Amino acid sequence: MSKTRESSALAAQIMRRSDELGAVSEERGCLTRTFHSPAMQRANKLVASWMGGAGMDVRVDAAFNLIGRVPSVRRGAKCVLIGSHLDTVRNAGKYDGPLGVLLGIAVAERLRGTALPFHLEVVGFSDEEGVRYQTTYLGSRGMCGLLRAADLARVEEKGIAKARRPVREMLAYLEAHIEQGPVLEVSNRPVGVVTAIAGQTRIRASLTGCAGHAGTTPMHLRQDALAGAAEIVLAAEKMGVLATVGQLEVDRGASNVIPGLVRFTLDVRDVKDAKRRAACAKLQRLAVAVARKRKLKLRWETVQETATASMDPALTKLLLKAAGSRVPRMPSGAGHDAAVFSACCPSAMLFVRCKGGVSHHPGESVKESDVAVAVDVLVRAVLELAKRHG
Amino acid sequence: MSKTRESSALAAQIMRRSDELGAVSEERGCLTRTFHSPAMQRANKLVASWMGGAGMDVRVDAAFNLIGRVPSVRRGAKCVLIGSHLDTVRNAGKYDGPLGVLLGIAVAERLRGTALPFHLEVVGFSDEEGVRYQTTYLGSRGMCGLLRAADLARVEEKGIAKARRPVREMLAYLEAHIEQGPVLEVSNRPVGVVTAIAGQTRIRASLTGCAGHAGTTPMHLRQDALAGAAEIVLAAEKMGVLATVGQLEVDRGASNVIPGLVRFTLDVRDVKDAKRRAACAKLQRLAVAVARKRKLKLRWETVQETATASMDPALTKLLLKAAGSRVPRMPSGAGHDAAVFSACCPSAMLFVRCKGGVSHHPGESVKESDVAVAVDVLVRAVLELAKRHG
Repeated sequence: MSKTRESSALAAQIMRRSDELGAVSEERGCLTRTFHSPAMQRANKLVASWMGGAGMDVRVDAAFNLIGRVPSVRRGAKCVLIGSHLDTVRNAGKYDGPLGVLLGIAVAERLRGTALPFHLEVVGFSDEEGVRYQTTYLGSRGMCGLLRAADLARVEEKGIAKARRPVREMLAYLEAHIEQGPVLEVSNRPVGVVTAIAGQTRIRASLTGCAGHAGTTPMHLRQDALAGAAEIVLAAEKMGVLATVGQLEVDRGASNVIPGLVRFTLDVRDVKDAKRRAACAKLQRLAVAVARKRKLKLRWETVQETATASMDPALTKLLLKAAGSRVPRMPSGAGHDAAVFSACCPSAMLFVRCKGGVSHHPGESVKESDVAVAVDVLVRAVLELAKRHG
Repeated sequence: MSKTRESSALAAQIMRRSDELGAVSEERGCLTRTFHSPAMQRANKLVASWMGGAGMDVRVDAAFNLIGRVPSVRRGAKCVLIGSHLDTVRNAGKYDGPLGVLLGIAVAERLRGTALPFHLEVVGFSDEEGVRYQTTYLGSRGMCGLLRAADLARVEEKGIAKARRPVREMLAYLEAHIEQGPVLEVSNRPVGVVTAIAGQTRIRASLTGCAGHAGTTPMHLRQDALAGAAEIVLAAEKMGVLATVGQLEVDRGASNVIPGLVRFTLDVRDVKDAKRRAACAKLQRLAVAVARKRKLKLRWETVQETATASMDPALTKLLLKAAGSRVPRMPSGAGHDAAVFSACCPSAMLFVRCKGGVSHHPGESVKESDVAVAVDVLVRAVLELAKRHG
């Protein structure tokens, strides 16, 4: 079979396996798999059988990560990991996470019999979405030794910290994932290479004005909390970063009452941490000015702040070369296990086009031909790594 | 007793009576009196006793309006009515409505023994707020013969249409009411004269865009329904009319999801119907343009439209004269029974300052000294009417 025909067959297999794995759920009628649930254990068993079929040694670590390994014949070899997560959000699509694991298995199948100067491991992480404990990346952080005491205090499974592995044995981490955005679709490309996983600031804010009768309060005497919030919503669009007011509620809203209290959230992301922080500061100053002008009381609270995780430049260059000259380079606005690994070893990420940019929804969809391209790119990347470390 | 001292005593009595009447409620712990409820019947009985005490003949008409009458000695005399409503919203204040009725009784007491060329009637209307049947003015519309078939279809009390009285017997309608707004307080005046009761348009609208991941959808590819709505909220402020977005909700809002659907209301009022209609049309055009620009789907539905009710120029002039040269003239943005009567007979309205413009709330508050001023103004107005029709 030619390489291309082989990739096509593997892509078809990935599509079938995605369907089969997508039916392994803890909820009837929709796909939900959360950390250490019986459904996750069934998913691990199913994926383990596919790993075994690809000739890998399979184990589950102390953080319930599923690891398939093709050992290197070389003595003292390090590891190249291809990973993504097998857990899902509630009412999920079937590709967010699992696609990256199935692609890893396909790579192992394509390279079966090829002597590599490193162990090739495919990992299905046990928790990326954080649904069970509202704390993300339990699987990859467990493996990288990045769990905090606060995480362990939160979980029942106290042994997960034992999944820690020496960072020195990790040569590289590669992850493929659906884009979860529309950029590849709009630019008509099957895959893209991720440059960095954007840092994020989450803010909770409120404006308090004065509720009043919509018919009897002249416009110039109003302290309309919603009008103030509207200025901030529109200002957020112009900050030059990804900024989203996703929640906004008028407290005790009624059609004939001037809004007296509005609560809203603000999600700000950018691959440049300084730019993100500057945008947040600028938005806060603007909110203060709006509040002063409109005689409103502003509450502004930063509830989460995550720094940007840059992908490794050399490994990313290698992945770009494997993907071909016209492949788009792009930041990831969503978090991924690669953000965790980037703190431990050279990491790089490949995005696969998904329909309409839809994710976290049963409507998630990828094209088999795009999956075949991803198989080829990952195989070329691993072979190039083998050449460099040979 | 001097006129001023007498008005002060009557104002003090009105304050006590407001407290007593404010305790007559169908709900424990707060003031709620809805059309034809047992509480309304108790309120009518209490107010009837005060009317009787002021020397009036008292009856309840077929629409459950309470009518106290000081008959004129003149043969074929017409009526001057001083009215307001005795029903309330849920969890109401004690002045919105009742104050005007109690002021009417005070006027009758002050004019006791004065021969008038018209019957003086004080009316406590049975329904202005419309809480029971979500249809306002059952009392005054019943008396004026302005009930529609749709109203009667809605109510259990089919006999209310029999309250209709010949319009030709109505010489004038006067109403005093708390302002429900901050204008008198800001301008430091105890009372104001209403020029017109503003027409109103109520609109229900929605914008549908595309929900998406806040981290993965570039700003230029977004169809953010909330950002579109924010433009309309801010545009509404600049229409030169009273325009309020009182309700706004983000459908399935989440901090990391771009709003895909936003529903909101728009309340537009102005004393000039053409101006109000033009503002609504302009706002709709703007909403259409915003939707086109942002690739959103706009739904825009006018759910209510009420024309402005102008007060009678001659009667208003008379009331202004009675109130003194420095009294503010002002529109009413809220509806009142006077809007109904203005279609039948010369009608005029006096506003009494209320604290913070607060109404429809237990915090409603008026000053006794302002109430005394209102008594004086109304008495002078009735005496002036008597002079003109003598």
